[in-house]
Amino acid sequence: MPTAKAPPRVLTIAGSDSGGGAGIQADLKTMLAHGVHGMSVLTAVTAQNSVGVQNFWPLPIEAVEQQFRSVADDIGVDAVKTGMLASPELTSAVARLIGTLDPAVPVVVDPVSVSKHGDPLLAPEAVDALRTELLPRATVVTPNLDEVRLITGLDVTDEKEMTAAARALSGLGPQWVLVKGGHLTDQPESVDLLVGPDGAELWLRAPRHDNRHTHGTGCTLASAIASRLALGDDVPSAVRAAKEYVTGGIAAGFPLGAGIGPVDHGWRWR
Amino acid sequence: MPTAKAPPRVLTIAGSDSGGGAGIQADLKTMLAHGVHGMSVLTAVTAQNSVGVQNFWPLPIEAVEQQFRSVADDIGVDAVKTGMLASPELTSAVARLIGTLDPAVPVVVDPVSVSKHGDPLLAPEAVDALRTELLPRATVVTPNLDEVRLITGLDVTDEKEMTAAARALSGLGPQWVLVKGGHLTDQPESVDLLVGPDGAELWLRAPRHDNRHTHGTGCTLASAIASRLALGDDVPSAVRAAKEYVTGGIAAGFPLGAGIGPVDHGWRWR
Repeated sequence: MPTAKAPPRVLTIAGSDSGGGAGIQADLKTMLAHGVHGMSVLTAVTAQNSVGVQNFWPLPIEAVEQQFRSVADDIGVDAVKTGMLASPELTSAVARLIGTLDPAVPVVVDPVSVSKHGDPLLAPEAVDALRTELLPRATVVTPNLDEVRLITGLDVTDEKEMTAAARALSGLGPQWVLVKGGHLTDQPESVDLLVGPDGAELWLRAPRHDNRHTHGTGCTLASAIASRLALGDDVPSAVRAAKEYVTGGIAAGFPLGAGIGPVDHGWRWR
Repeated sequence: MPTAKAPPRVLTIAGSDSGGGAGIQADLKTMLAHGVHGMSVLTAVTAQNSVGVQNFWPLPIEAVEQQFRSVADDIGVDAVKTGMLASPELTSAVARLIGTLDPAVPVVVDPVSVSKHGDPLLAPEAVDALRTELLPRATVVTPNLDEVRLITGLDVTDEKEMTAAARALSGLGPQWVLVKGGHLTDQPESVDLLVGPDGAELWLRAPRHDNRHTHGTGCTLASAIASRLALGDDVPSAVRAAKEYVTGGIAAGFPLGAGIGPVDHGWRWR
């Protein structure tokens, strides 16, 4: 019988969320939902649920390096997404590993710093490595407003300040910056700003769903962007499609545990 | 807006396959494909691709325990699947943890011992713990013929010997035994035997696809059974449906890397 053609290969480099709503779990589910082959290099393992991150165990640097080489040297990679990088050493190692890929491979950097519950997932001293080693290699970086503050020092309180934040981030070297304004809760819509290499601004607005089940939205958005890029979209199209996917996932998000439930990664098939 | 109802919650306790085709990656993909919420307790992280397992790092026992408690005590579990348990200590710890769940929660034990490439994933001295601590709590155990030999000492070379093997395994305490005869390659069909608590035999036959892309079939089958059980199927129905899903996934399996490519977990949506 004929063998099926392989779908594009997308790699997440991130932490594991035992609860299944965020981290590589959200990434792999998002990738399957987009029809690409999901792979993962684990950077850390968390004990995590709907109320918080109870503990985490970073992987040794050589485990991260060997997972990456096993995947990149045999299977190959059409797009990369990075998430929880935990420490300065892991952040530097991941930047180095990504530097060994063909420069044409798109890299989506989700600069994960705290969980939805406020638990720290990135050591403060790792921000420098993120800023100077990883961001210059990013095709798209996708910070929320807390991460914008951590990386640039800028406190964004309205849409106008999102523009200044995006420009400050562009100065650090990523090709595209997507500032996620979802935390501006006085807005009736969830507003994101995409700024490209030529400085052009693309504002993306989606209805804000009155739904507390938003665990994993950042991971899901970044993985959806990486999946669409692997499928051949340009960056603005990939970001638009990813935002549509996440918005649908939030609308279909469900309760699970005592706290924040996950987005529904399978909403398009229900 | 109304909040969606949560789907059944299915937990895999297994290793991570960086290549994305087996382990918790196959499990989580299979669970999404079945519409259940997938969660994971990692026991080990492998550096793995289409040609083999290059290295692996077992997690500390307390990391396995804390991941399990985070999930079970907050989110809850409707079905469990176990895979790579690596060491006697991990096997015993997982058996103990499962013992803290409601006895009505179905447990599917895939007694993973070697990878598709022949790399060892279970220390020989762990077989005792598997036999005496984990199997008595299994709702279904799903060994292939290599695992049958490891657990029972029986060498199965034809269909008749599959019956003897299933009975020997039943004697160790699992409610149902599914002996996977896929390695009997002189057969035109892939033949599995399910034996229940009353000793009744159910033979399951599926066309053997001439396709080398079978990486992850064992993980996928066990997770599909766990997903169907969580959705309310009885064991024979769950096993039939799972075998149909895996057979379709093998037929749609695709090349990836230089060796054995994965089954296609998303084949029903292509």
